Amino acid sequence: MSEKSYHMTPAQFREYGYAVIDWIADYYKDIGTLPVLSQVKPGEVRQTLTPGAPRKGEAFTAILHDMKAVILPGVTHWQSPNFFAYFPANASGPAILGDLLSSALGVQGMLWATSPACTELETCVLDWLVSMLGLPEKFLSTSKGGGVIQDTASSSSLCAMLAGRERATNYRSNRQGCDGRLVAYTSNQAHSSLEKAAMVAGIGLENLRLIEVDQQFAMRPEVLARQIAQDGAAGLVPFFVSATVGTTSSNALDPLPAIGAICRKNNIWFHVDAAMSGTAALCPELRYIQDGLDLADSYTFNPHKWMFTNFDCNCFYVADRKALIDTLSILPEYLRNQATESGAVFDYRDWHIPLGRRFRSLKLWFVIRHYGVEGLQFHVRRHVELAQQFLEWVRQDDRFEVAAPAPLNLVCFRHRGGNERNTMLMDRLNTSGDLYLTHTRLNGKVTLRFCVGQTNTTQMHVENAWKRIQEEAGKL
Amino acid sequence: MSEKSYHMTPAQFREYGYAVIDWIADYYKDIGTLPVLSQVKPGEVRQTLTPGAPRKGEAFTAILHDMKAVILPGVTHWQSPNFFAYFPANASGPAILGDLLSSALGVQGMLWATSPACTELETCVLDWLVSMLGLPEKFLSTSKGGGVIQDTASSSSLCAMLAGRERATNYRSNRQGCDGRLVAYTSNQAHSSLEKAAMVAGIGLENLRLIEVDQQFAMRPEVLARQIAQDGAAGLVPFFVSATVGTTSSNALDPLPAIGAICRKNNIWFHVDAAMSGTAALCPELRYIQDGLDLADSYTFNPHKWMFTNFDCNCFYVADRKALIDTLSILPEYLRNQATESGAVFDYRDWHIPLGRRFRSLKLWFVIRHYGVEGLQFHVRRHVELAQQFLEWVRQDDRFEVAAPAPLNLVCFRHRGGNERNTMLMDRLNTSGDLYLTHTRLNGKVTLRFCVGQTNTTQMHVENAWKRIQEEAGKL
Repeated sequence: MSEKSYHMTPAQFREYGYAVIDWIADYYKDIGTLPVLSQVKPGEVRQTLTPGAPRKGEAFTAILHDMKAVILPGVTHWQSPNFFAYFPANASGPAILGDLLSSALGVQGMLWATSPACTELETCVLDWLVSMLGLPEKFLSTSKGGGVIQDTASSSSLCAMLAGRERATNYRSNRQGCDGRLVAYTSNQAHSSLEKAAMVAGIGLENLRLIEVDQQFAMRPEVLARQIAQDGAAGLVPFFVSATVGTTSSNALDPLPAIGAICRKNNIWFHVDAAMSGTAALCPELRYIQDGLDLADSYTFNPHKWMFTNFDCNCFYVADRKALIDTLSILPEYLRNQATESGAVFDYRDWHIPLGRRFRSLKLWFVIRHYGVEGLQFHVRRHVELAQQFLEWVRQDDRFEVAAPAPLNLVCFRHRGGNERNTMLMDRLNTSGDLYLTHTRLNGKVTLRFCVGQTNTTQMHVENAWKRIQEEAGKL
Repeated sequence: MSEKSYHMTPAQFREYGYAVIDWIADYYKDIGTLPVLSQVKPGEVRQTLTPGAPRKGEAFTAILHDMKAVILPGVTHWQSPNFFAYFPANASGPAILGDLLSSALGVQGMLWATSPACTELETCVLDWLVSMLGLPEKFLSTSKGGGVIQDTASSSSLCAMLAGRERATNYRSNRQGCDGRLVAYTSNQAHSSLEKAAMVAGIGLENLRLIEVDQQFAMRPEVLARQIAQDGAAGLVPFFVSATVGTTSSNALDPLPAIGAICRKNNIWFHVDAAMSGTAALCPELRYIQDGLDLADSYTFNPHKWMFTNFDCNCFYVADRKALIDTLSILPEYLRNQATESGAVFDYRDWHIPLGRRFRSLKLWFVIRHYGVEGLQFHVRRHVELAQQFLEWVRQDDRFEVAAPAPLNLVCFRHRGGNERNTMLMDRLNTSGDLYLTHTRLNGKVTLRFCVGQTNTTQMHVENAWKRIQEEAGKL
């Protein structure tokens, strides 16, 4: 280029790119030794940033320097092998590099026509996952259904609710708006995103019934059936049920066959949210968690939680793609094109709320090909084993009790000394930086959650974590 | 690690990371010579992919090899300097590398507490942009407002509509659902995302009034005022107006001062969508496009369109953050923490629909620091100059007419030979692979859109494009 330019040249990109790759490789080498939970106070990071944007460009080395000096102290290391909090959001080398290529290609996949590979690779990989996970074949693109990558399960569940809303009202809600008569259902242990979806979709929180759960924190289908009958009798319109495979609090498994049967009988959209736990189905011996999924209209799980694919990568499947597309489709003139009009292609913008979309299937493709089904199964099994071992240790220590069934990789437990002690224990552990775990409440009691799902977590990390928990418990 | 593992080691990551960086540097070196629009037919990419996932992991070199062999033929090169279609979605070296660090850190920014730097850098950079663009100070985080990064303007506009809905109903819609009486307004040239938002939010398409435009394709405020009065008299509740700064079809500028005054008078939420064109305000001489923005309740624009920051990076500002947060907030036990309860921090999950969120401010921070305000201004000015030059060439060629005012970087024009000829001209140009441009309809007439905004587009590329357009026009 002869014109003046402030752009990074390909040669500079190569040099700085290597530097960033080195930075990341070093970060992952050291990550196990960093305090997991950031120790900064509110406003502390902001204070170290310049108050205004620079007038003149800065050297790349200066910017990269600040990653360590300014950013890292304020980072909680979600990729640390000592991270046992919330749900994992694990990443891996192939995912990061696949995502890098997506950033660099910078294509838009809103329509098939705007970059065909972006759509077709996504369809292909989501079909692969149907077999890999043993999902019902109706979710295949070659049947009447299909899958799409969204940002989060929150967004997918919202889209499921919208499709259910439109099916129930014969698309009247889309045309005339909601009328306050539609009623949705989920358990009182379901993820908060269902409540958010009910607000966003014009259904209203009061029209989302939080069905009570049994002693295992799973939805009670007989209560659901009763509530549906009652609402129907009151002139309301039951239209949507969301069941959870692995609740956020305690990993409870709702009974899909019974719930699905109720939905079928009442012609209600049946959605299943398996955000983290869905990945477990890679292993045939764990596939029982999704028994009954053949009754579902839609299904969502997150490879960006437990499948080594960095955020964001949520997979959303529908059994009847027409219902979804008819709900979300708008076709302005500036997006018209021959491929769309031929009907031979998917235009994924009609499968979710945003119009623009990046090439997210690349990272998932890289992950599946790098690990192979075998490698993914190996690591998922290993995580479950480690969690089960931890569970056993908790059981053997009289000071603690197990707070909920732990079918997979999440262990809910508590110190027998009451809420305050558990909070204190958690805070001390987290402040130490040695590990990070979080809490919930089950039956009103503060409960500690220990979730094994980090890419580089091994036996040693789980052992160390348990040792530290025992140590701090001894000091209470 | 002594345990068996299928993971990429840090040493392997370094090696393969370098290879990917090289791949990208080479791609950008060659990109100007590649056919811009992918020439594949529906299903062609899919056919070259293996029908099922591999049982065993594959070598990284094999995966990277397929990027060229399988993926690239199906890619439309949005980063090509010969891309003049739709709106740009431009990327740059610093953005790609900042995004790479975000993928690698893999932190979740849903709460301040889950990684403080992710929240505080975002707040800081969005405050920087307020000064950089000359936006009203009420959008600063240090006032009652603030900014957040979302995925797309579609999502931001939806959130604006929701906040407006809740303000108008005193949060009754969130609790009891919509009742079909709320009415929203935008111009008939507004982006299709407004229609989608009206459907999603339970308002209904029939309750979104598409206000007619003047001869410049800008909303007619007197028609808006009349419609609002009429709807109010009919017992409906006007609650939301979205004005556009640079419509998708023709870059028309709605008159914000007049529209804002109407909204103030009627206590209606006033949203402004400047998806692409907002970036122009980096240059003081172009800031007139946002005159009247001081009357807005919310504002959205996309650095991922024209500010060299790869997708996704939409900036959404509100004047009253409490209204937004109260609309979208849900706080389950498992997300409770001291920082949130202190009220001293932002929890950005309450500012949009998804819960999970990645560290997107890194790429924006990298871009602003690499270019400096000066470098960004330089390139935006250059794009506008190049588009204006193109406009002049169109004016001087009798075969063509200018179809709409071209205040910035988008030129709408058409061959005088009618719709069919324009479609034929476009198809031939796009099929040649030499450049890519798209169409719209203005007053029923097929209109070609030529948008200058690619990172590496220079005088030469625009000259070549015009030469090719003239050539093909000669053959019609």
